[in-house]
Amino acid sequence: MKTWREECAVFGAWNHEEAARLAYLGLYAMQHRGQESAGIVSLHAGEHRVHKGLGLVVDVFKEPELCELKGRVSIGHVRYSTTGENRIVNAQPMVAGLLNGPVAIAHNGNLVNAKIIRKKLQAQGAIFQGTNDTECVLHLISHISSDDFVTSVKSVLPQLEGAFSFVFLSHREMVCVRDRYGFRPLVLGKKKNDQGEDAWVVASETCAFDLIDAQYVREIEPGEIFWVDEKGAHSEKWTHSIHSAKCVFEHVYFSRPDSVVFGQSVYESRKAFGRWLAKESGVAADVVIPVPDSGVPAAIGYSAESGIPFEFGIIRNHYVGRTFIQPHQSVRDIGVKIKLNPQRAVLSGKKVIVVDDSLVRGTTSQKIVRLIRQAGAKEIHVRIASPPTVGPCYYGVDTPQKSQLIAAHQSLEEIRAFIEADSLAYLSLDGLFSAVGEGREEGRENNALKNKEKSYCAACFNGEYPTPLFE
Amino acid sequence: MKTWREECAVFGAWNHEEAARLAYLGLYAMQHRGQESAGIVSLHAGEHRVHKGLGLVVDVFKEPELCELKGRVSIGHVRYSTTGENRIVNAQPMVAGLLNGPVAIAHNGNLVNAKIIRKKLQAQGAIFQGTNDTECVLHLISHISSDDFVTSVKSVLPQLEGAFSFVFLSHREMVCVRDRYGFRPLVLGKKKNDQGEDAWVVASETCAFDLIDAQYVREIEPGEIFWVDEKGAHSEKWTHSIHSAKCVFEHVYFSRPDSVVFGQSVYESRKAFGRWLAKESGVAADVVIPVPDSGVPAAIGYSAESGIPFEFGIIRNHYVGRTFIQPHQSVRDIGVKIKLNPQRAVLSGKKVIVVDDSLVRGTTSQKIVRLIRQAGAKEIHVRIASPPTVGPCYYGVDTPQKSQLIAAHQSLEEIRAFIEADSLAYLSLDGLFSAVGEGREEGRENNALKNKEKSYCAACFNGEYPTPLFE
Amino acid sequence: MKTWREECAVFGAWNHEEAARLAYLGLYAMQHRGQESAGIVSLHAGEHRVHKGLGLVVDVFKEPELCELKGRVSIGHVRYSTTGENRIVNAQPMVAGLLNGPVAIAHNGNLVNAKIIRKKLQAQGAIFQGTNDTECVLHLISHISSDDFVTSVKSVLPQLEGAFSFVFLSHREMVCVRDRYGFRPLVLGKKKNDQGEDAWVVASETCAFDLIDAQYVREIEPGEIFWVDEKGAHSEKWTHSIHSAKCVFEHVYFSRPDSVVFGQSVYESRKAFGRWLAKESGVAADVVIPVPDSGVPAAIGYSAESGIPFEFGIIRNHYVGRTFIQPHQSVRDIGVKIKLNPQRAVLSGKKVIVVDDSLVRGTTSQKIVRLIRQAGAKEIHVRIASPPTVGPCYYGVDTPQKSQLIAAHQSLEEIRAFIEADSLAYLSLDGLFSAVGEGREEGRENNALKNKEKSYCAACFNGEYPTPLFE
Amino acid sequence: MKTWREECAVFGAWNHEEAARLAYLGLYAMQHRGQESAGIVSLHAGEHRVHKGLGLVVDVFKEPELCELKGRVSIGHVRYSTTGENRIVNAQPMVAGLLNGPVAIAHNGNLVNAKIIRKKLQAQGAIFQGTNDTECVLHLISHISSDDFVTSVKSVLPQLEGAFSFVFLSHREMVCVRDRYGFRPLVLGKKKNDQGEDAWVVASETCAFDLIDAQYVREIEPGEIFWVDEKGAHSEKWTHSIHSAKCVFEHVYFSRPDSVVFGQSVYESRKAFGRWLAKESGVAADVVIPVPDSGVPAAIGYSAESGIPFEFGIIRNHYVGRTFIQPHQSVRDIGVKIKLNPQRAVLSGKKVIVVDDSLVRGTTSQKIVRLIRQAGAKEIHVRIASPPTVGPCYYGVDTPQKSQLIAAHQSLEEIRAFIEADSLAYLSLDGLFSAVGEGREEGRENNALKNKEKSYCAACFNGEYPTPLFE
Repeated sequence: MKTWREECAVFGAWNHEEAARLAYLGLYAMQHRGQESAGIVSLHAGEHRVHKGLGLVVDVFKEPELCELKGRVSIGHVRYSTTGENRIVNAQPMVAGLLNGPVAIAHNGNLVNAKIIRKKLQAQGAIFQGTNDTECVLHLISHISSDDFVTSVKSVLPQLEGAFSFVFLSHREMVCVRDRYGFRPLVLGKKKNDQGEDAWVVASETCAFDLIDAQYVREIEPGEIFWVDEKGAHSEKWTHSIHSAKCVFEHVYFSRPDSVVFGQSVYESRKAFGRWLAKESGVAADVVIPVPDSGVPAAIGYSAESGIPFEFGIIRNHYVGRTFIQPHQSVRDIGVKIKLNPQRAVLSGKKVIVVDDSLVRGTTSQKIVRLIRQAGAKEIHVRIASPPTVGPCYYGVDTPQKSQLIAAHQSLEEIRAFIEADSLAYLSLDGLFSAVGEGREEGRENNALKNKEKSYCAACFNGEYPTPLFE
Repeated sequence: MKTWREECAVFGAWNHEEAARLAYLGLYAMQHRGQESAGIVSLHAGEHRVHKGLGLVVDVFKEPELCELKGRVSIGHVRYSTTGENRIVNAQPMVAGLLNGPVAIAHNGNLVNAKIIRKKLQAQGAIFQGTNDTECVLHLISHISSDDFVTSVKSVLPQLEGAFSFVFLSHREMVCVRDRYGFRPLVLGKKKNDQGEDAWVVASETCAFDLIDAQYVREIEPGEIFWVDEKGAHSEKWTHSIHSAKCVFEHVYFSRPDSVVFGQSVYESRKAFGRWLAKESGVAADVVIPVPDSGVPAAIGYSAESGIPFEFGIIRNHYVGRTFIQPHQSVRDIGVKIKLNPQRAVLSGKKVIVVDDSLVRGTTSQKIVRLIRQAGAKEIHVRIASPPTVGPCYYGVDTPQKSQLIAAHQSLEEIRAFIEADSLAYLSLDGLFSAVGEGREEGRENNALKNKEKSYCAACFNGEYPTPLFE
Repeated sequence: MKTWREECAVFGAWNHEEAARLAYLGLYAMQHRGQESAGIVSLHAGEHRVHKGLGLVVDVFKEPELCELKGRVSIGHVRYSTTGENRIVNAQPMVAGLLNGPVAIAHNGNLVNAKIIRKKLQAQGAIFQGTNDTECVLHLISHISSDDFVTSVKSVLPQLEGAFSFVFLSHREMVCVRDRYGFRPLVLGKKKNDQGEDAWVVASETCAFDLIDAQYVREIEPGEIFWVDEKGAHSEKWTHSIHSAKCVFEHVYFSRPDSVVFGQSVYESRKAFGRWLAKESGVAADVVIPVPDSGVPAAIGYSAESGIPFEFGIIRNHYVGRTFIQPHQSVRDIGVKIKLNPQRAVLSGKKVIVVDDSLVRGTTSQKIVRLIRQAGAKEIHVRIASPPTVGPCYYGVDTPQKSQLIAAHQSLEEIRAFIEADSLAYLSLDGLFSAVGEGREEGRENNALKNKEKSYCAACFNGEYPTPLFE
Repeated sequence: MKTWREECAVFGAWNHEEAARLAYLGLYAMQHRGQESAGIVSLHAGEHRVHKGLGLVVDVFKEPELCELKGRVSIGHVRYSTTGENRIVNAQPMVAGLLNGPVAIAHNGNLVNAKIIRKKLQAQGAIFQGTNDTECVLHLISHISSDDFVTSVKSVLPQLEGAFSFVFLSHREMVCVRDRYGFRPLVLGKKKNDQGEDAWVVASETCAFDLIDAQYVREIEPGEIFWVDEKGAHSEKWTHSIHSAKCVFEHVYFSRPDSVVFGQSVYESRKAFGRWLAKESGVAADVVIPVPDSGVPAAIGYSAESGIPFEFGIIRNHYVGRTFIQPHQSVRDIGVKIKLNPQRAVLSGKKVIVVDDSLVRGTTSQKIVRLIRQAGAKEIHVRIASPPTVGPCYYGVDTPQKSQLIAAHQSLEEIRAFIEADSLAYLSLDGLFSAVGEGREEGRENNALKNKEKSYCAACFNGEYPTPLFE
């Protein structure tokens, strides 16, 4: 039902006897970031072993595939693929044979100048097998004449504009890169291997580390290139022009609540969104209920701040399959009900505050409001734990057309009427920034706020895109 | 991880143009009651159409199968099947050709005298294709010479001892039966069909009605036989010997929280378990967290009663597949972590109350306690929202051997030490009965309690089995 | 394309360390007799292990299934199943629990009085899970009160009318039975096991023995019951009323050419059909070509007798899958061409004799004649190595309605015109019987012929059914 | 069992309303040339639609895939893929995005200078996704700056050395190319489309045309480039340096017998091999039998020349699946017997001539000889319808190491002893060339022979490789 979808997660493990299995677990933990394809590349005896497939991690990888992925180094990727016949071609990690050896790349983000680069490369004779922007990076690297892979990567990065958290695997090193804005998260961790040495791990979210018993070390910084090879770990800034623009939507919706993203607990951020929302838009009511699962922490925060009891007024069914067969007629709003069941015992005769993480097109909210009203609610107050979404994202998120973003075209009152709620309120931009640690909350000084306010990208809420857009 | 498993759900629909699709949706809504096999039988032109398969409802039924299940009447079933080669043979609804026409049966429960009946039937020449108890019922019906199916069923029922909520489908009527104890739930509902007439629906839980937009009418009563045919709906008591012994574990764990079972909201029951637990076993703490998902309502109740904040300290991952590949080593307690991730941001430095619905073998609780402690909790107080489980169930639940029930052999203190908690408390039997509306709560009189205390079966908690056991 | 289909093969192995694997190989060798379902039952520690599935032997059985089928005894079955939702229910061997233990049965043939028996059993309270006739046999056995399985079987057999080659497996013995007519083949063989002892094997065709390195011993005789138990092998006649009526179509089409059936090589029989056909219906021509594969031996015989060169004028493609996608238009007769490609290099400008084993509806023959003519043949003479098929079979063969048998309604000349051949001739009934060793050939005396002519059933050719038909 | 495998077939259709379905049928007809992967690319609205998969044509393509492959132009490919994780990457047709639009390529053959080209391209910055030689061609084309695709192809072809029959599809034209030697076949055909216009088709073998009702027009000539675009069909020689070296093994084994290859019927060639073999190595015997299926035409020729009767002494089973489970022990030579069953009725007591198409390692021949002897043959004379194979192929055939070619290391007598035959003879090189129309047969003059003897490549038999080998 959500139409704002993160497009990828990346993972890497260096110097561990079960490298491919760590990738499997890490990708599994980050499955929410991409459910269309999964892939792992391992490095064994100087050669890449590759397995990629369409579907969930647990479906793409079985024991035989993991056994084939020999080696003490691995990188992995999950993604939403573009539609069309050619989907497997776009699955990552992408692998290519270069003069100096094989290179694999896993990419979370989106290059806004990919089309320009692609045309230029094609004019020079390059051929493209797929349609995704990541393939450009391999071509650019291949055009650098250096024998040293890290040197090549560093030469290429300044040519790229947009969002990129990369994990590369050459036949000699694993290289992790984050763009100068730090749009997408990328975290570094450690784990002991069977020799008692440190194994390095890297992932999009810390929840991957939790599952594999790895210790979180730090973020890969915006503008950083971090690599490990036989001599150990190395870090540099690949650029001096750094303008932090971390994606605030990671906190709003994309990341798992149990991850620490950009140095802050996502669960705590969401609770803070809920608390700020309660402060800004309080209303008398009997219960606060979340739209599960993503609205749960904000609803807990809202309840704590307002003192109105928190209840699970809507139960979510987790057995939904890919090919659910719908009745032709005779059951209303089956698309929502198949996942969400409001319960009369909690809602009947009550004034209800419903908390959701965001509101994109409004159609799902309308159905939820109707279901709650059928369950007997007396009043329904919808509270959205983020500001109105007014613009698409160009930094690695699959967003609807602007024409489909209801808040880009309708007033608050029009939206309220459309979703048939008794009242509707969004979190303010101020509240949003405050909640992610940039504002007045927690006794921080205003000066700090001023300086930090720009450290997040909130382009989908405020239209301020940190990069040129090229199209 | 739970080892106390409900074995089935049943469904029926009469006089609806999308009867098989309603069964599909109804079974989908009750998928939690049985995930090993699914089956639907429809009645078309006086003949049964059958499709059964191993797996989830959404995997067993696709568009072609549903299209083949023509007709305005259907019954359906989901179950846990026994192990072994022969599993599909035991899938329900079971279908058989009798002299007077085809009969299909869907059964939730367990006949405690099935082996005795089976031997007697075999001595008379009957053959058995599967190993389940339900096949006996078909044989007994076939041995009745009556032309009238309902008469035959009524003759057979007094021979059966144990738990049974049946839905039968002959070529002329749909028949719903509940045993004299009412062990398993069975509810009746209504929905308008394309002619504007009433379509009758029957299901194990009301959540099935919510999904198909049906109205809940009432429970099929213990000892009742309810049937619909061309002339309409009919109801009788098939026995005068009725001793209510409804399964309290339906409220503790089996049923969906958004169902109304035995006339009471499961969600509210669980919250009440949590509230009673807080009253009985309060402890100073910073947060109350549930073991998700089943412990959530009790934790909300505990939090409400105690005033200690409710938090989601453990995040559950819902992508778990059937064939998750485990690392050979190097990751501890992966079996639990693959589903549950305790989050440091919520737990670190805190005194934590962990609420779970029940505690069977203790091994999972031990792992959860360890994970919470690794996440930095200062104190861990485990609170179980039901009494100690001391005996197996013979009424349609797959339970471990008594030797595996930790509470059957160890003291409270021994269990606490085993699971490595700082304190451990169970809900009392009194609290349990009170919470399900049989006790002191809500201003009810003690007299009422006395009379009603026996209306629930709590054999797994108190060892009082309402029927002879025969083995 | 052939519409005259054998319905089953049976197999059994006693006292061999790889009993289930021998069944797998034996069924694989007899795959041509049934491609819809396959099943094996083994006996391990007094209990049956069962695996059945829809599809080819190599698809139904993989290593895990074979590993589960432990034990030194096995029986197996392949079949064409009837259409409908319930198909797996009818797959064999059928297995049932009787008072004295489990029984499995594999059946090749058809009971002509099955419906009568079924009704009688149902009136006594029996229930039927599937629709096939074999289930009756299990019921009848169960109604016998004897402790001794062989005694029970012998009591039941006289109640059965029709075609049956049975292999039973109880928990103590393997029992092989052939009906009084010997309609379907059943052969006995031997093989050394890992102890150096004799392992008994039984199969529908000797080609199964060739694959497993077993020695052919003899046929199970019409009216014989043969069984092996701990004490060894035993044989009796279960009836004194024996009237040999072996199915001549086994030689015409069903059996593999490399099998010895009813004591005679099928390949040699077919060559003899071809030779007799050449004697009876010689015609001047340049080449003799078979419709592959079934027409090959007869064409070789025809060529040998006539002196006209044998050529492969039609090439058969063996890659045909189950779900071949046909073009909507634009390619004529794709259904035939997908399998058969006449080659211009052999046929162009030639007078061609085309030999096929039988002609059922004529539509395929028409298409083949057209294709040969398009390939440039000057004259096309169709020669059918069996008589006109004028009646359906009731003894275990899936045959079209009589209305679809072209020879039941049209004259030779009409058929010739329909298939667009320049001439058409069938083998005579006399020629047929002669070729299978019952006639004038090879200097046999006419007296012998007279006596033996009735030893074959040729009801599909001459309408003389050896049993009452009951419907 | 054969270890000499053709690696590909190609197909193309231009201007037909069911272009993708024609490709499907054409590839199906040529399935024997590659069973590991299949792919089709269609051209619709100026864009390529692609579907490729591992497996047989009938498994890779179902109705939904064919429906997606819209357009009036298609090209297709079947292949044996190399082993390893990356197999789908190497499936053809390969598709790439070039500056001037998309290009797809299907290749039958092998470029002997691919590694050299690859290194050079990588040094210029090219990246390679797969490991096959075909990808080089796309890169070379992309490096040509011409706007005209045919011009680009013509510029690239002189850089390629080795065997190539290409079918290209750009967004404007279909281009067919054959190398200067004509190693691999490529034939041109025509078919009327729904407008009554000519649709052009191209395929590796004429059997593809037979299935789709297309008319054979002619071979694409060695050194020819043939293309069709909106203006019609065009043909040129892309080189003046033409040295015919057509692969004689196409006639010996690869091609289907019902194809016309290099202008001659394969079936007739094989019969001629058999006739020459009989002339050269006659021996007194009772029967001539083929090793089916590939030895059949040669055996027919041998029988015709020698007057010794032709019989099917070995029956082939066509149900072999991909994952046949073998017994652990207890059955000898199961690998051969699973496919081939010698029949005692034909062989017992006979002097037998066994004709096979070729003999590579000798192990299979040994097993066949043993099986025939077990079936009772008195004498066994093996006749091979081609010369001893002494060298590997570098022109698109998957051949064993030279060390595994028995004839490269052992004398005729040693081989005879190894395979345990009573006598062994190969066809002579003279006989081989004569049979394919280059020799003394059919009254041709010796002069003609002299000139033409070099028109075939028989490097695997005589070690004379027509190109430099580069490695």
